[in-house]
Amino acid sequence: MEIPPSTLPDNRFSALITDLLPICRSITGSGVTRTLERLQQEIPILIREVPSGAPALDWTVPNEWNIRDAWVKNSRGERVIDFKKSNLHVVSYSTPVNATMTLDELKPHLFSLPAQPTAIPYRTSYYNESWGFCLSHEDLLKLEIGNYEVVIDSELKPGFLRYGELLIKGEVEEEILITTHLCHPTMCNDNLSGLTVATLLAKMIAESSPHFSYRFLFIPGTIGSLAWLAANEDHLGKIKCGLVLTGVGDPGSPTYKKSRRADSVIDRVMEYVLKSGSPKFEIRNFSPFGYDERQFCSPAFDLPVGCLMRTPHGEYPEYHTSLDNPDFIKLESLQDTLRICLRCFELLENNRFYLNLFPKGEPQLGKRGLYQAMGQQTKDRQSLQLAMLWVLNYSDGGHDLLDISLKSSLPFDIVTAAAKLLEECKVIRPIPSAHAM
Amino acid sequence: MEIPPSTLPDNRFSALITDLLPICRSITGSGVTRTLERLQQEIPILIREVPSGAPALDWTVPNEWNIRDAWVKNSRGERVIDFKKSNLHVVSYSTPVNATMTLDELKPHLFSLPAQPTAIPYRTSYYNESWGFCLSHEDLLKLEIGNYEVVIDSELKPGFLRYGELLIKGEVEEEILITTHLCHPTMCNDNLSGLTVATLLAKMIAESSPHFSYRFLFIPGTIGSLAWLAANEDHLGKIKCGLVLTGVGDPGSPTYKKSRRADSVIDRVMEYVLKSGSPKFEIRNFSPFGYDERQFCSPAFDLPVGCLMRTPHGEYPEYHTSLDNPDFIKLESLQDTLRICLRCFELLENNRFYLNLFPKGEPQLGKRGLYQAMGQQTKDRQSLQLAMLWVLNYSDGGHDLLDISLKSSLPFDIVTAAAKLLEECKVIRPIPSAHAM
Amino acid sequence: MEIPPSTLPDNRFSALITDLLPICRSITGSGVTRTLERLQQEIPILIREVPSGAPALDWTVPNEWNIRDAWVKNSRGERVIDFKKSNLHVVSYSTPVNATMTLDELKPHLFSLPAQPTAIPYRTSYYNESWGFCLSHEDLLKLEIGNYEVVIDSELKPGFLRYGELLIKGEVEEEILITTHLCHPTMCNDNLSGLTVATLLAKMIAESSPHFSYRFLFIPGTIGSLAWLAANEDHLGKIKCGLVLTGVGDPGSPTYKKSRRADSVIDRVMEYVLKSGSPKFEIRNFSPFGYDERQFCSPAFDLPVGCLMRTPHGEYPEYHTSLDNPDFIKLESLQDTLRICLRCFELLENNRFYLNLFPKGEPQLGKRGLYQAMGQQTKDRQSLQLAMLWVLNYSDGGHDLLDISLKSSLPFDIVTAAAKLLEECKVIRPIPSAHAM
Repeated sequence: MEIPPSTLPDNRFSALITDLLPICRSITGSGVTRTLERLQQEIPILIREVPSGAPALDWTVPNEWNIRDAWVKNSRGERVIDFKKSNLHVVSYSTPVNATMTLDELKPHLFSLPAQPTAIPYRTSYYNESWGFCLSHEDLLKLEIGNYEVVIDSELKPGFLRYGELLIKGEVEEEILITTHLCHPTMCNDNLSGLTVATLLAKMIAESSPHFSYRFLFIPGTIGSLAWLAANEDHLGKIKCGLVLTGVGDPGSPTYKKSRRADSVIDRVMEYVLKSGSPKFEIRNFSPFGYDERQFCSPAFDLPVGCLMRTPHGEYPEYHTSLDNPDFIKLESLQDTLRICLRCFELLENNRFYLNLFPKGEPQLGKRGLYQAMGQQTKDRQSLQLAMLWVLNYSDGGHDLLDISLKSSLPFDIVTAAAKLLEECKVIRPIPSAHAM
Repeated sequence: MEIPPSTLPDNRFSALITDLLPICRSITGSGVTRTLERLQQEIPILIREVPSGAPALDWTVPNEWNIRDAWVKNSRGERVIDFKKSNLHVVSYSTPVNATMTLDELKPHLFSLPAQPTAIPYRTSYYNESWGFCLSHEDLLKLEIGNYEVVIDSELKPGFLRYGELLIKGEVEEEILITTHLCHPTMCNDNLSGLTVATLLAKMIAESSPHFSYRFLFIPGTIGSLAWLAANEDHLGKIKCGLVLTGVGDPGSPTYKKSRRADSVIDRVMEYVLKSGSPKFEIRNFSPFGYDERQFCSPAFDLPVGCLMRTPHGEYPEYHTSLDNPDFIKLESLQDTLRICLRCFELLENNRFYLNLFPKGEPQLGKRGLYQAMGQQTKDRQSLQLAMLWVLNYSDGGHDLLDISLKSSLPFDIVTAAAKLLEECKVIRPIPSAHAM
Repeated sequence: MEIPPSTLPDNRFSALITDLLPICRSITGSGVTRTLERLQQEIPILIREVPSGAPALDWTVPNEWNIRDAWVKNSRGERVIDFKKSNLHVVSYSTPVNATMTLDELKPHLFSLPAQPTAIPYRTSYYNESWGFCLSHEDLLKLEIGNYEVVIDSELKPGFLRYGELLIKGEVEEEILITTHLCHPTMCNDNLSGLTVATLLAKMIAESSPHFSYRFLFIPGTIGSLAWLAANEDHLGKIKCGLVLTGVGDPGSPTYKKSRRADSVIDRVMEYVLKSGSPKFEIRNFSPFGYDERQFCSPAFDLPVGCLMRTPHGEYPEYHTSLDNPDFIKLESLQDTLRICLRCFELLENNRFYLNLFPKGEPQLGKRGLYQAMGQQTKDRQSLQLAMLWVLNYSDGGHDLLDISLKSSLPFDIVTAAAKLLEECKVIRPIPSAHAM
């Protein structure tokens, strides 16, 4: 897999974001379908359907929710809250309402953020039937005593949970899993950033000839990964490692949250990629809250799946509010995340275990044309020669190339180049990682 | 086990210390018996007897030593050294003497501390028959040339080694062992402080309904623990962990000396208790000198037994002198030690291994009433919910609640509360620590 | 093995260096033979011969190289480069030449160091047939345009690779391996320093009665160790550990490069020796370049062989130039290296695993005369008594005396003395390190 930096599709981001932004997504409903159909214009995603009521491990797939319109009108007939203006105004999964009520009766159903008076909060009630409206605290304070017409023209009834899945077949069946959630309406960092990066990533990998297979999931949070895990339990052994992409567009520097295993290959590779390529970054230990890594890293699965984000959720004031809008996310952040992912996959693809076929003493490099005599080496050639000695000494079945790069303090790419030269001369041979010690 | 702080028996300390102080204790003899009989007024201690000459592992129980009186009289008939004034004046286990001798003949039998001229040192000669007197260096210098009447009215003959033992039965047979030595005469920190704290601790535990059983030993140092170990070899498998209490009344901050295993449950719990509850403390690694932990942690036993003290022995000038008197120890230190022990036992009692019964993905907390929706959580409720996720993710048979508390940086009590909620809802179940990985 | 410091043979160094300095050594040829013959005047080295063309693991023993004379004469018949003046002037393994050529034709065969204009560089071309001259950059610049007579009166034809081997038999067959290379001409730190230290070390060990056997190798770099390893594969199991000595005479402080295993006994001992005896030193991790430790630590052998040097090769400007002359090396450095080696071997000889024969509780030291009662101990006696307790507690089959010294922070020699006392009293017994856990 070789992807020149010049092919990074800068302008594709804005096109996708513009199209996806207005759609009212939730964990089910037509918003999900329309989102997936738009992504299908980029990559050949399959849309999977799981019926309401189907078990998903300890959970049950909920009814499908759809909404046409919703408003609160004051006594003058003015829409003081209007779903048409922002789909954040309605608590996701609100049951239908059509009633007239006093402000006091309405208030328990209204949610605002007193500390952020201009922001509309984002609220959901997936598994607990209720209804509500979200609005800015400023607007809440403007509501006068009186009667209000309250309408939520929604529908909650048996239907389907839908998610998108794309398998890009590589030379081997072993898979790298990339997932992102698609259940948030309107907001940009959470979750259009993950959706767009994953989509463009899939597009670029599909155009390369990867060694590993790559599986992309575009899933509603929690219930989506649970449904996928339930349907694919027998398949999980093929997953080499994975990444959950979430909140990857804000101006913050990258944050990588390790898998529960903490020292799996994705954790080691991501640490190398960030240390060697990002001036500022953070690496956090696994914790059982966050996004779908919670499910992939639950104790019985314990998959080597980490989570790549920028500023972690809840640690920026725009999180889960109407302030998480197109102005908040940065093209540079999206591109940088894409670059980090591609570099990560490049390392994963190259990071083999090799076996030194001449492990007694050093093999003679000179007779194979691998040794430059009499000190006339350039500095690069010196590093390469050094890297060959490191690869030879540690290709004992217990160290992959990344280990050797870290042990030797030589760049991974030089270690890889040395390994390629040695492999060509049949001094070392790759072994499956399953055969490594 | 639930012990409200208000039951801490502040004034009991002084009563016990007042009664025990004058008794001339040694490793055998009537002073031991009288001490144990006084403790029996508080707790139902059994007095064990081992005859002189009985083997105790590599050792032999020595003859029983008793002393009635002892003095050195000058030529004017004045008692210049008088056992009646302080039982420290006679080297413990001194053989009988009744002789007149010159000062020069007497001097090799006199011990003082030139660097601490007002203090009477404490000396013993248990396993090497000899006799001697201890006195302040000031008084030594006052002795005039002349003849002295030297009398030690003691007896060293076959009898018994005695120690006290109290088993408080809990729900399970697995035991927590608490030991303290009772062989030092008169001095307060070494060893009345340990005797009183252990006694009041036993009293409080006996009044609770503990999960584990608690075994208290009141034993002469070294030979006492050796005799007990020799008699109880088959029983040692039941000991979950233990604490040697010694020097727990001086004004210093608490010091915990780890068991030889260094990472046993008592070591981890005590570290947590001190870090979370003591502004100043010290934790030391195991070393094979000190008190009876030397025997419990000998290589063939290697029991998870640590040692709780305040200033370690030999590191304060009052140590093993007449300056270790009631003025030296502080009620606050005794109470604080009691508090640390009770907190330690509370943690031990609550610190279970659990098994997540729904380890594939997260179990749905909402349908069990364990999830508070729509962000209306208090801060405490948030911590509890977070703790539930941590308990669920790490209740894999390899982590106890203390591990989970440390991993999550959540207080142990909140983790315990979360586990209790999850256990009530049958989402997790406790497993015996022996079944843990 | 007990070697009093006064026997350190201070003046022997200069005698050996004076004799060995002028010899033109290479990896083969009469210079090697003459060097070994001179060493045989000190110690009974066996000279081993391996014929050219013989396989040495992945390598082949090269032809034997000998040189009588070499020069470059200018048109006035003056020797502007003269092998007789310095054997560094000829690239080692240069093929014979007898030709007249212009300066331009000659120049590709001339090597100098522009950055060190007064130094003659040291160059070799062992496995790539070619020829060349080395000269100071100053002299290179003086060469005038014109014709030059170029003569290298050398011979490269089938013969033998020779190396020296000396086995000093100890009480046991288990061996300590000491190797040094002998293939460098004229230069002092690289490699007369190693040759002389190894020779005098062998002489001193042969005069002691060591517990372990000691094998000394005086070998041409790389091909020498490969040839020895190839011939001794079945023997390698007897090697307890080893040291490569190289560059041990420069004014720098000692540097120890660990074996590939990093925590083998030689690594632990050398760390102790340097920390306890050298005010300044450096310990480096293994890396697969340097001297013959590259071969001993190749993955299939992975012998516990470290490398002792002072300033590492290439990190001082005199390295591999004519500036590495007798003025550069210091008698103090050679002596200090000798001292470090002897101390290292002393520790290796004393560093046993013991088994406590009374592991239940403490054995009673008093009845064996090992306990000094009543506090009349000197400070030394206190340390010894403390050391006995440490030895007893950790002589569990899993800790050698060095471990116990480090754990207890007691000097190794005191721990050894304590172990000897305990062994005499049959409280502990030594066990073979192979039986240790």
